[in-house]
Amino acid sequence: MISNDPYAELEKRFARMSAVNRASAILNWDRSAIMPDGASDDRADQLATLDGVAHEMMVAPDMPELLGRAEEGKAGLDAWRAANLREMRHSWIHSSALPGDLVEARTRARSACEMAWREAKKNADFKSLLPTLSDVLTLTRRIGEAKAAVLGVSVYDALLDEYEPGGRSAHIDVLFAELKAFLPGLLARVLERQSQAGEALPLAGPFPLEAQRKLGLQMARALGFDFHHGRLDVSAHPFTGGTPDDVRITTRYDEADFARALMGTLHETGHALYEAGLPRDWRRQPVGQSRGMVLHESQSLLMEMQACRSSAFIDFAAPLMREAFGKGGPAWEVGNLYRIYTRVRPGFIRVDADEVTYPLHIVLRYRLERALLAGDLALADLPGAWNDGMKELLGIVPPNDAVGCLQDIHWPDGSFGYFPTYTLGALAAAQLFAAARQAVPDLLGAIGKGDFAPLLAWLRTNVHGKGSIAGTDAILTEATGAPLGVAAFKAHLESRYLPA
Amino acid sequence: MISNDPYAELEKRFARMSAVNRASAILNWDRSAIMPDGASDDRADQLATLDGVAHEMMVAPDMPELLGRAEEGKAGLDAWRAANLREMRHSWIHSSALPGDLVEARTRARSACEMAWREAKKNADFKSLLPTLSDVLTLTRRIGEAKAAVLGVSVYDALLDEYEPGGRSAHIDVLFAELKAFLPGLLARVLERQSQAGEALPLAGPFPLEAQRKLGLQMARALGFDFHHGRLDVSAHPFTGGTPDDVRITTRYDEADFARALMGTLHETGHALYEAGLPRDWRRQPVGQSRGMVLHESQSLLMEMQACRSSAFIDFAAPLMREAFGKGGPAWEVGNLYRIYTRVRPGFIRVDADEVTYPLHIVLRYRLERALLAGDLALADLPGAWNDGMKELLGIVPPNDAVGCLQDIHWPDGSFGYFPTYTLGALAAAQLFAAARQAVPDLLGAIGKGDFAPLLAWLRTNVHGKGSIAGTDAILTEATGAPLGVAAFKAHLESRYLPA
Repeated sequence: MISNDPYAELEKRFARMSAVNRASAILNWDRSAIMPDGASDDRADQLATLDGVAHEMMVAPDMPELLGRAEEGKAGLDAWRAANLREMRHSWIHSSALPGDLVEARTRARSACEMAWREAKKNADFKSLLPTLSDVLTLTRRIGEAKAAVLGVSVYDALLDEYEPGGRSAHIDVLFAELKAFLPGLLARVLERQSQAGEALPLAGPFPLEAQRKLGLQMARALGFDFHHGRLDVSAHPFTGGTPDDVRITTRYDEADFARALMGTLHETGHALYEAGLPRDWRRQPVGQSRGMVLHESQSLLMEMQACRSSAFIDFAAPLMREAFGKGGPAWEVGNLYRIYTRVRPGFIRVDADEVTYPLHIVLRYRLERALLAGDLALADLPGAWNDGMKELLGIVPPNDAVGCLQDIHWPDGSFGYFPTYTLGALAAAQLFAAARQAVPDLLGAIGKGDFAPLLAWLRTNVHGKGSIAGTDAILTEATGAPLGVAAFKAHLESRYLPA
Repeated sequence: MISNDPYAELEKRFARMSAVNRASAILNWDRSAIMPDGASDDRADQLATLDGVAHEMMVAPDMPELLGRAEEGKAGLDAWRAANLREMRHSWIHSSALPGDLVEARTRARSACEMAWREAKKNADFKSLLPTLSDVLTLTRRIGEAKAAVLGVSVYDALLDEYEPGGRSAHIDVLFAELKAFLPGLLARVLERQSQAGEALPLAGPFPLEAQRKLGLQMARALGFDFHHGRLDVSAHPFTGGTPDDVRITTRYDEADFARALMGTLHETGHALYEAGLPRDWRRQPVGQSRGMVLHESQSLLMEMQACRSSAFIDFAAPLMREAFGKGGPAWEVGNLYRIYTRVRPGFIRVDADEVTYPLHIVLRYRLERALLAGDLALADLPGAWNDGMKELLGIVPPNDAVGCLQDIHWPDGSFGYFPTYTLGALAAAQLFAAARQAVPDLLGAIGKGDFAPLLAWLRTNVHGKGSIAGTDAILTEATGAPLGVAAFKAHLESRYLPA
């Protein structure tokens, strides 16, 4: 039975799917943060069922007709509704492009591969991962092929499109080539300069967990996190989950090093503020979702890297850190803390990388995952190619695969096409922060007083409140005057790490 | 499209509904225990949607035919499957008896009434509750009428049947008449005896929350709670939620009085052990659910009242309590603690009542809710009828309606027919504990050493592992040799409160 107002009927259905997906989001958070171990099968069954329910709603037999009839009447829709309809179609394409058995097969393959990966990483034994990773790669390629056929793009771009709608490798190639031409030279100069300056004084712990937790809450609140609509908890791998009205961030504490948990909290707070700032009237519709992983990562990196490693922020944070842990002396002076927070050093591990070397980790992964998908690189040759790339890009070779090609869960998880969004997010963060500084008088002065309200207001207007009304580049162009590029990022790194 | 194996198809569908309902159970727990306040609308939308999804599965157009065809082939099913099919039919009757708009209307009326009730209770202003409570009563009566027509029972019994399948007021009338004949006389004698013995020595606090939490965890573990499959958290109103593989109990702590939180934890642990002990192969089917609220309450009261207020248990618990709070002296001796845990005194508040006076609170509510539903008592006359009943049954009159007819959420919540299950559960608890003591040599001796394994094993076999394979009376008869009665409860009260 087809409704007389197909667009209204679609809104109703997508609101319902949103409710199911938001339920899943809370259950996923619970699983990663607080669920007792013994409940994992039970929870997997719940989540698979809810995914199935939402999928059935999406691929209901009358959806093509509903979408088609709504699109015929598009001229009568306002900008939000027209964009919403476009996003509905986009979601439907991604869901309906795949035969159900392919999705299920990949879900099973991912579970098996993730289990094998935990063992393989523990034992630094890449060979043991080959059979299951090969399955995941094959099935992911088939998914990419199915979507590529419908979207009219390459296999890689079809996969990328799941994380960054409209993202295209032709554009990434250009941006990454510029980074690859720029970063190694910059890195050498920064290392030279930092080596001349000598090591920063270490911060002596231990740092009691409760004091860390309080400091993290205080900082998240300062950035604008609203605990009336969210929580901060602990999990093995920090993440942002939940829903826009119920954002849940996690961190993990290390008694020997408070900086990591704190910076992790500020990073996740950036993600959380994006979710919390999505357009209130549309957040249960496709157009009210966050735009994609590039803007999402831009919001976490804008907070963590652009704002909270600035010397202005350290001015604000240093006395609070000293107070939280009852510390003092030269190591806790602003100058020394700033050196700690802006230290650059090539390393094997992506998640521990500073903002200068991080993009090189991504350039490597982007190159390798495209070659794997295209069949130009055999899985068995991955470790060698990885180590060659590390040598070329960062000048170091991992001693074993555990700290090499086995370090990330993304490929075992079938998330090919995800990696580039980290660095594209870093570029967008630099570009947005520069634009915010231009638009808001004395933005850094406010941050130096712990006042994030001017920054948050600008982000609410120019990023968060846009939801998915336009594409990433259109949002960036309206906010910053230009589509995504490397100029602001380069300028940021030079001004922070090679100040005149 | 009807399957060739209708029973197998039904199992598949009910497993799917179970997964959706288990997801809701976790989300409900989250809402009551840890959800940020601002998320309540968001969560209400998620839960209403999941309820709707499960309801649609249940009332799918081909369900009557599937059930009918499976019932034709019932002779080929084993006992579990045959019982499962009976429970499927029972669930379907409850769901399909109601027009969707009636369910939605009551949901809205309950929300409105619950909000009004919080205010009314705060202000001891019953009149302000009348309009919304009247709506809830009218709609609940209509629901009862719709179900009564299908079930072929009275309106009250149709409502009772939601909480206690097969429960009938004709039986309750008999049991409650016996209690009403017995309890006031017993109460007078107990009060006389306790007044002669004098007041117990008070336990001087404060009792730090963290020490209370540790003691609660230790005790729950001693009873058999498996934290690999469950959690203990804090909430305003203690409850048991979650799923059989992920049981979540809550408590609340009061620095001035640790006994209440501890007894609350033991009570919820009893509920939790029932859920955790449901038959492993059937817990995602109707036949693997807990039997009803009578047996459920019997399991919490068996732990809290029968086992954990026994002097054997106090022998075990006293040194742990002293250690937890670093206390000693006469007040912390076993004899004094036992007097505290078995103190009897009529009061206004049901949830604070001891096990002697508690049933009288229930007799009153049962009498009043039947009269309200039958139209024999006007809502406006409820406060007067309440106070008359309190005077008659407990000899005291509430000073205002906040501690009178406004104290419980059940009626504003539309839960007419729920109250009797508390006292029927107390009767069942006494009966089951007496049978366990007969069957297991030196059961109290083991409990005195903190060893609950023999008790739990007996309950697993005789109650928990039965799920819903038979009715409450059948399960009780097999376990104790008799259907639900008052004899064991009377004997228990006499032996504990009037020992020779």
